[in-house]
Amino acid sequence: MDDLIAFLGIPSISALSEHSGDVRRAAEFVRDWLAHAGLEHSRLIEGDGNPLVFAEWTRAPAKPTLLLYGHYDVQPPDPLNEWTTPPFDPQIRDGSLYARGAADDKGQVYILMEAVGRLLRERGRLPVNVKFLIEGEEESGGEHIEHYVAGAPPELRSDAAIICDTAMFAPGLPTITTGLRGLVYGEIHVAGARTDLHSGDYGGAAPNAIEAAAQIIAALKDRDGHIRIPGLYDRVRRPSDAELAAWRSLPFDAKEYREKEIGSPALAGEPEVPLFERLWSRPTLEVHGIRGGFTGEGAKTVIPARAVVKISLRLVPDQRPEEVARQLETALAQAAPRGVTAAFKLLSSAPASVVDPENPFIRKAAEAMEKVFGRKTVYVRCGGSIPIVGVFEKSLGIPSVLAGFGLPDDNIHAPNEKMSVENIRRGIDAMIAYFDALGGS
Amino acid sequence: MDDLIAFLGIPSISALSEHSGDVRRAAEFVRDWLAHAGLEHSRLIEGDGNPLVFAEWTRAPAKPTLLLYGHYDVQPPDPLNEWTTPPFDPQIRDGSLYARGAADDKGQVYILMEAVGRLLRERGRLPVNVKFLIEGEEESGGEHIEHYVAGAPPELRSDAAIICDTAMFAPGLPTITTGLRGLVYGEIHVAGARTDLHSGDYGGAAPNAIEAAAQIIAALKDRDGHIRIPGLYDRVRRPSDAELAAWRSLPFDAKEYREKEIGSPALAGEPEVPLFERLWSRPTLEVHGIRGGFTGEGAKTVIPARAVVKISLRLVPDQRPEEVARQLETALAQAAPRGVTAAFKLLSSAPASVVDPENPFIRKAAEAMEKVFGRKTVYVRCGGSIPIVGVFEKSLGIPSVLAGFGLPDDNIHAPNEKMSVENIRRGIDAMIAYFDALGGS
Repeated sequence: MDDLIAFLGIPSISALSEHSGDVRRAAEFVRDWLAHAGLEHSRLIEGDGNPLVFAEWTRAPAKPTLLLYGHYDVQPPDPLNEWTTPPFDPQIRDGSLYARGAADDKGQVYILMEAVGRLLRERGRLPVNVKFLIEGEEESGGEHIEHYVAGAPPELRSDAAIICDTAMFAPGLPTITTGLRGLVYGEIHVAGARTDLHSGDYGGAAPNAIEAAAQIIAALKDRDGHIRIPGLYDRVRRPSDAELAAWRSLPFDAKEYREKEIGSPALAGEPEVPLFERLWSRPTLEVHGIRGGFTGEGAKTVIPARAVVKISLRLVPDQRPEEVARQLETALAQAAPRGVTAAFKLLSSAPASVVDPENPFIRKAAEAMEKVFGRKTVYVRCGGSIPIVGVFEKSLGIPSVLAGFGLPDDNIHAPNEKMSVENIRRGIDAMIAYFDALGGS
Repeated sequence: MDDLIAFLGIPSISALSEHSGDVRRAAEFVRDWLAHAGLEHSRLIEGDGNPLVFAEWTRAPAKPTLLLYGHYDVQPPDPLNEWTTPPFDPQIRDGSLYARGAADDKGQVYILMEAVGRLLRERGRLPVNVKFLIEGEEESGGEHIEHYVAGAPPELRSDAAIICDTAMFAPGLPTITTGLRGLVYGEIHVAGARTDLHSGDYGGAAPNAIEAAAQIIAALKDRDGHIRIPGLYDRVRRPSDAELAAWRSLPFDAKEYREKEIGSPALAGEPEVPLFERLWSRPTLEVHGIRGGFTGEGAKTVIPARAVVKISLRLVPDQRPEEVARQLETALAQAAPRGVTAAFKLLSSAPASVVDPENPFIRKAAEAMEKVFGRKTVYVRCGGSIPIVGVFEKSLGIPSVLAGFGLPDDNIHAPNEKMSVENIRRGIDAMIAYFDALGGS
């Protein structure tokens, strides 16, 4: 685990430009580790944005070739004061490794690295061909990997992509993800008066940009979680009855989910839609923060002239990101109250994607995981977005196998992110079993 | 002006604890200046909070005694990047002195200081008795001065308070303020999930504290500026017909006000209420900022678990601050959407106050200002709050004369605060004329 702890110690926060040196260090760490493990052509692929790490081992002719994907960048760690131990000083407590990136995604990248590394150490060869492609902009919406993969370079030729960046449905329950939501992420820029004004002198005359932002948010999404953007639900595709039935049979304790995992007085979201559909096959809208005005200590009485709302929509099949962004812009124009203007600035987007669970690469992964974990693998969807899945399919013509070993309470994108040490170990074993199964050994 | 420039150079921001040393330096500056000018018993009055500055000259027996009030503390300067020159590096441009505190209130405190100082330099005595009481918590809601004045200490015995902390209605138009709005300032604490959660994994299930805050704000105040807090308007007292008629005859260009002073596409506030009533005799509600979630660079996809809304209400006669705070709490409980809790934390409050323009201390001030400015003094109200006015009346039994020399576009509480150099000069002359008139010389 020492190598993983060193990897986690690098604050490779791709969303914050002051960490660009750390981001590069993390890329170099992966490159050097893979070269040392015996992979070939280990290198950084430069381009607009953070480097990609590439390395391959292709000495198994006539055997399948797997493209192993993950990301070495991490989310920002704030709010820092809510971490029990510092986010970039990895610590093992109660069988879990705590650090920003432990589950998302360095710990899972390490599963792929160590599965290959151990086979090369123990056998000197692999049962299949592998090509690592580890990116550094998954958390910041960067497009370097998309541009690179879109060119379908010969070195990426492969039969399937293996993506270790999702969670198991429950502890001990091997899980393959067959669908991901898409994303439209951007900022709403609200502008009122020329400058911040004193609320005593101007309260009753000056428009308040933050109040306008609140009016806009309340207009875009009602108190019951219905998105009030005209046309937004028109293309939403309902999952098959078989898929919905499978979801209904998943082991799930609704009370524990609300009390332990969410920890709020009630759940949010469309009350008439079952939970897994709300999470996996319905679009959602979330506000991530509002910048502007005064939020410091004490009592400053400004009427904010400007507000920036960080907002995103999760998309489902067959919604189109460009169309959703346009629908949002149109809705904004109608939602802005008197006295302000509101404009949408798109930061990143990706369509939703679904894969066929009958694909042999998925079936064999499910069997290998079943062998290691001793329980039947379940198929779920993920409410999150992994845009590269769509790019692999479109540009390389390959399916993606989403075999993840995180847990639902791993606090990814939140304080006290962690990953189960046992899941890391089993994940490595499962990947080795999978490679063996695919190689026919 | 050198002394004023030195005074403005001290970042005495009372709302930020890291500036407590600067706050004290500003108090010492005033104390030492007044001692040097020839006032007696110049000292700091310590207590809970920032020191008060006291100094007096009482060698004019049988003449009126004036309590000269102002504040040496200033608002925080953020957003810093919108200042043309640094807030604590005072600069004169186009006849105005630019600095945080230039008009609110150091420049106006300096008018009082220099009026007294010049008389003592030139004549060796004053036509009236004066007692300076300059505080350092006006911008932070501190209560040191209120506790001190509430004890009615003998050294404060006086016939009227002179407060230089308001603005002229228009350039060149001498103005006395006869009414102030009160204030209820606090924070709404919204709590949803146990911790920030990933919007992909939990969007559709987890309550979003910032969206809840938006729903609450939209419920508390509608798109037309009506406050939807039950009972809030019950005690609101309408100004007299004479006062309303005087307001209607004030020189005012509505188009220029909107375009130049506010600078927004339209004005906000109750559309059916005339502007001056909205600003001076109607309660208003403003949100000053929302803390929580992610507002940095890039795209972090959290569902915020907590949000803190900085909010205030301006009150008018005869609203009662404690009652309004309770009404707000009750409304909050009803406005909070499913899945969150919302609590109100009161930070400071003050009732509104009105004074009688027929009081001789006010009438003579109006005459003195008329002589210096060459135009008839107008009576207006101020939408802002100067809580000490109510305390002077209640505890010392004295009326306050609100004779201010700021201008409507002085950007108080905003970037690029300034004060007209000519108004400082005329303000000093007007105060000297006023003292002479009161002293009968």
